[in-house]
Amino acid sequence: MDFPRAEYEARLNRAQAAMHDAGIDALFLMSEPDVRYFTGFRTPFWQSPTRPWFVVVPVKGGPVAIIPEIGAALMAQTWVDDIRTWAAPNMDDDGISLLSDALSGFSTIGMMMGHETSLRMPLSDFETLRGRLRSAQFVDATRIVQHLRMVKSGAEIAVHAEICTIACNAFDRAAELFHVGQPLDQAFRAFKIALLEEGAEDVPYLVGGRGPMGYDDVISPPDATPLCEGDVLMLDTGATLRGAFCDFDRNFALGHADDAVRRTHQTLWQATEAGLAAARPGATCADLFAAMNKVIGGQSSNVGRFGHGLGMQLTEQPSIIDWDHTVLQEGMVMTLEPSIPVSGGGMLVHEENIVIRDGTPDLLTRRENEELRIL
Amino acid sequence: MDFPRAEYEARLNRAQAAMHDAGIDALFLMSEPDVRYFTGFRTPFWQSPTRPWFVVVPVKGGPVAIIPEIGAALMAQTWVDDIRTWAAPNMDDDGISLLSDALSGFSTIGMMMGHETSLRMPLSDFETLRGRLRSAQFVDATRIVQHLRMVKSGAEIAVHAEICTIACNAFDRAAELFHVGQPLDQAFRAFKIALLEEGAEDVPYLVGGRGPMGYDDVISPPDATPLCEGDVLMLDTGATLRGAFCDFDRNFALGHADDAVRRTHQTLWQATEAGLAAARPGATCADLFAAMNKVIGGQSSNVGRFGHGLGMQLTEQPSIIDWDHTVLQEGMVMTLEPSIPVSGGGMLVHEENIVIRDGTPDLLTRRENEELRIL
Repeated sequence: MDFPRAEYEARLNRAQAAMHDAGIDALFLMSEPDVRYFTGFRTPFWQSPTRPWFVVVPVKGGPVAIIPEIGAALMAQTWVDDIRTWAAPNMDDDGISLLSDALSGFSTIGMMMGHETSLRMPLSDFETLRGRLRSAQFVDATRIVQHLRMVKSGAEIAVHAEICTIACNAFDRAAELFHVGQPLDQAFRAFKIALLEEGAEDVPYLVGGRGPMGYDDVISPPDATPLCEGDVLMLDTGATLRGAFCDFDRNFALGHADDAVRRTHQTLWQATEAGLAAARPGATCADLFAAMNKVIGGQSSNVGRFGHGLGMQLTEQPSIIDWDHTVLQEGMVMTLEPSIPVSGGGMLVHEENIVIRDGTPDLLTRRENEELRIL
Repeated sequence: MDFPRAEYEARLNRAQAAMHDAGIDALFLMSEPDVRYFTGFRTPFWQSPTRPWFVVVPVKGGPVAIIPEIGAALMAQTWVDDIRTWAAPNMDDDGISLLSDALSGFSTIGMMMGHETSLRMPLSDFETLRGRLRSAQFVDATRIVQHLRMVKSGAEIAVHAEICTIACNAFDRAAELFHVGQPLDQAFRAFKIALLEEGAEDVPYLVGGRGPMGYDDVISPPDATPLCEGDVLMLDTGATLRGAFCDFDRNFALGHADDAVRRTHQTLWQATEAGLAAARPGATCADLFAAMNKVIGGQSSNVGRFGHGLGMQLTEQPSIIDWDHTVLQEGMVMTLEPSIPVSGGGMLVHEENIVIRDGTPDLLTRRENEELRIL
């Protein structure tokens, strides 16, 4: 487990209080972060789609893990006492009998059905299960779990701080890592290696872009185009430590930068300043969006929001967007991520990671300079 | 796109022939590999759960991409002509109206509902969609898509061969990378860096274990326990190149190895020899399992199978297990992965990657030695 037992007990207690208020008898969970959040079970084995993994969180008592045998030894190292396994994969019954036994006593079963969720089991198996539990009602528990996970403990924040520092240290080696003539994919590879060398455990996410007037999008994998004098290079990384993500980018100009690009970087920096000034407990995500949008002057890129929650996933609830009225609370870990089109060119994005505090938020990233860095 | 347009056209044609035979009017797809398989759209942005991505493959005509605006520029670089976007995330309508328009003309809609699949969209949104398309029938198309993807083209196999060679080159640096006293997590980090240095694009999967008598499981992340003289160290990696996986492991003993461990490694090696001898077009996965199991003598670990398909995912259909009667075909890329308990200890796993050919399969990995490697 990545945290002491008390951390998981506190999560369970808060979940059970919310379940009690909502009239939910059990949570039925199956995604990697939800299973890990309640059990402490962490493995890269989720890369394989072959086997489903389940956790049932009853409104009273401890969580029940219903998992393939291959995970039994690792799950036994967590705080979960009730571990039920089957020999997976199994074509005829991939955990469904175990699940229907475990869920049969409950009349209202909460599941993740809302925004940002998936059903990580075969749809046909889910329908079989629902058929066997015909007297139970399956209800949406998305907000309960997402709201729990939004607010981080001190121990969680400490890991996010550590991985943000690691990534800052890797970015600070930019002058050594990136150079004119280097194919973009080699720049990505060099940066991944630097992240690992600085102490990241993994680099599940690295995107970026380049161009003299910004970049066209922020989700492309790199091609082998060489970096040119005057290019701005952006790298945006979700590196992890003990399963906790950072998520921020840095922009660098090679040799020199176009004036429009430099001014755009200044505007973005000022927008994150406005975000830092507005990010207070009691303000809403919409307020935070408005504060940054005012600086940017309503110019829109295709990203659709100016940041989001950050945690066991690269992006989590809430969204910093005009329709998200989630109220900020102390302990939320978030990204501020304004983006704007460069006049006559592509776009620029700038991102910092913060913790909401009673007063000025803590920066988890070392604050970027207002002036675009020139390598 | 990772392949020329003709590759995607061939995939579409084969899919449409199978859809025609099955009476399916359109495939409705949403997982990363399925979207990539039909469109060529590849991005690490799937790490974010915020936005769903959809592709509709009609029985006649080209695929239709229904995606968030943030992906429009990248999708426009693929061969897909019909790209429909919305400003995501959108709380009220996250692509559902676009989807119901795109699917409204079809009466039988195929989806991935079977083993190894997930529903990568909110369950409540799926139920809304199904409600709007009440006259349509949603049927299971799992086998159609999985069977298409099982058999690889020459271009696909070439990329798998390349990433397997890269990982072999990294493993061949073991004596330089691993040493007694090294914390296990540092050994993992050193190996990830070596994989990137040798040319891997990414290392989405690395697990392993250590111990004088084998290891307890094959899915654990590493802790900081130092490697000891006499330990066997196993690393199992799913590294990628242009989105194609390798998936194999190597075992190394540090200084010396227990006799039982060395004998177990020999047995596993002989089991993969038997697998190589049995892996022929026309044989079934169950035959392949039986051939390896005969050598192993029916000792069982907790893994449940002796290998699997390999491709755009770390593990794909089929499974090398006694109940999988899938017939092997030329062009299937697979892993042979027997595992057994070490008498009086943990377990050992040994894995190679192969291509089924008319005759002896091609090894994509450089064949491991029968004798356990001693560092």
